Amino acid sequence: MQKLTVVKVGGKIVEDEATLAQLLKDFSAIEGAKVLVHGGGRSATKVAASLGIESTMIGGRRVTDADMLRVVSMVYGGLVNKNIVARLQACGINALGLTGADVNVMLSHKRAPKKVTMDDGTEQMVDFGFVGDVDKCDGKMLSALIGEGIVPVMAPLTHDGKGNLLNTNADTIAGETAKALAPYFDVTLIYSFEHAGVLTDAENEDSVIPLITADSFEQLKADGTVNGGMIPKIENSLDAVRAGVKQVIITKADAIDGKHGTIIR
Amino acid sequence: MQKLTVVKVGGKIVEDEATLAQLLKDFSAIEGAKVLVHGGGRSATKVAASLGIESTMIGGRRVTDADMLRVVSMVYGGLVNKNIVARLQACGINALGLTGADVNVMLSHKRAPKKVTMDDGTEQMVDFGFVGDVDKCDGKMLSALIGEGIVPVMAPLTHDGKGNLLNTNADTIAGETAKALAPYFDVTLIYSFEHAGVLTDAENEDSVIPLITADSFEQLKADGTVNGGMIPKIENSLDAVRAGVKQVIITKADAIDGKHGTIIR
Repeated sequence: MQKLTVVKVGGKIVEDEATLAQLLKDFSAIEGAKVLVHGGGRSATKVAASLGIESTMIGGRRVTDADMLRVVSMVYGGLVNKNIVARLQACGINALGLTGADVNVMLSHKRAPKKVTMDDGTEQMVDFGFVGDVDKCDGKMLSALIGEGIVPVMAPLTHDGKGNLLNTNADTIAGETAKALAPYFDVTLIYSFEHAGVLTDAENEDSVIPLITADSFEQLKADGTVNGGMIPKIENSLDAVRAGVKQVIITKADAIDGKHGTIIR
Repeated sequence: MQKLTVVKVGGKIVEDEATLAQLLKDFSAIEGAKVLVHGGGRSATKVAASLGIESTMIGGRRVTDADMLRVVSMVYGGLVNKNIVARLQACGINALGLTGADVNVMLSHKRAPKKVTMDDGTEQMVDFGFVGDVDKCDGKMLSALIGEGIVPVMAPLTHDGKGNLLNTNADTIAGETAKALAPYFDVTLIYSFEHAGVLTDAENEDSVIPLITADSFEQLKADGTVNGGMIPKIENSLDAVRAGVKQVIITKADAIDGKHGTIIR
């Protein structure tokens, strides 16, 4: 099967000119078919603030009321996505910006209010508003576009099929995209983040764990090496591997060549 | 050849919920292949104002500095385009939102400062900023997408191939799209605007001229029936016809079924 790489980059990388330029250069250099998935939370927060709209984050997730949905539609679907597309075109990459609504590529449903553990440890019912939990990614359509030499650039927005856009976590978009493409390609999913990989020592960027499997993950959890926010990240990665993704790599944004970071498979 | 309709709608229509709903219903009902081209100027002006950015219009055209380019990228490429796409999906139309940068569909160059006749009749050199004059529309790519059952929804943004988005008049986008698709389809281009068609009496919506040709246009210009802003509109339409577009229809936004308005061919 042909090789395909799905790269997820956070807002911080795509919003700073220097890191964006480096990322686009590195992404362009990846051989074979590829997909870029981006965030944009910081820009959304900034634009919202300029419009006098306050950003509310609960458990690291944005509460998206109607005004905030307008902001993320503008910032993720327009400002961030279209600038990346134009920049990739200048690198000779035939980029196509997509939200989940475009060619119906990612269908979701509005998240029902759910119990969330707050920062103070208490549990509370939270209505995240116009936030989408993904039901279906159309791998066949994506695969057909990719077959035409197109490189999808996916914004963290989905739709409910009833005319509404929904704000959706970019990690989730990347995971669902990788899984949906697994029947068509030999998929590597790269999650870039602020560290060199999954570390045994949070203070030491040289302490990257080279490989995590379902078995070793149990051990790493049990002895406390892996904890906090890394646990769901690795669980999602193992879930992608179980669904047919060849490997997931967790690495730093400036090392997305597939040769650095922690491999999960 | 298969029939294809390109419909251009202005910002006023897509920014009001009632007129947008009617437009999407009417557009969905058009048989055969189709493309929607939209404006969004009013929303851009509104969002810009909320961000403390003043809109400067000269001769009906927006001056687009770096801040305004960010606004139109957000509003045209994100807010307006993606909402239309999501709404069309809910109507069962497989919409795909595109700027000129997406799949490199419309390449342009930044307009050099040019002499403009101001409202007071004087001439002045005006730098419109990040505004694009179209060089090339990729009809082959559009035609391939349309062949897959996809309905392109085009925002009034192009790119220069060097990484920059450029603000581009929606009428121009529609005209260039229609011309580029003429080798592949039997193209009707519908320009919707505030009147029932080209009128012989500006005060009477029943005075629609049913047909204008290159010959009759000369006569209408000579006797003063057609004047002002209608002249470039009709000139652009005749230009599209000369380039292979079967017919151009100038009509009201609530009458885009191809059976109303002024036919130009």
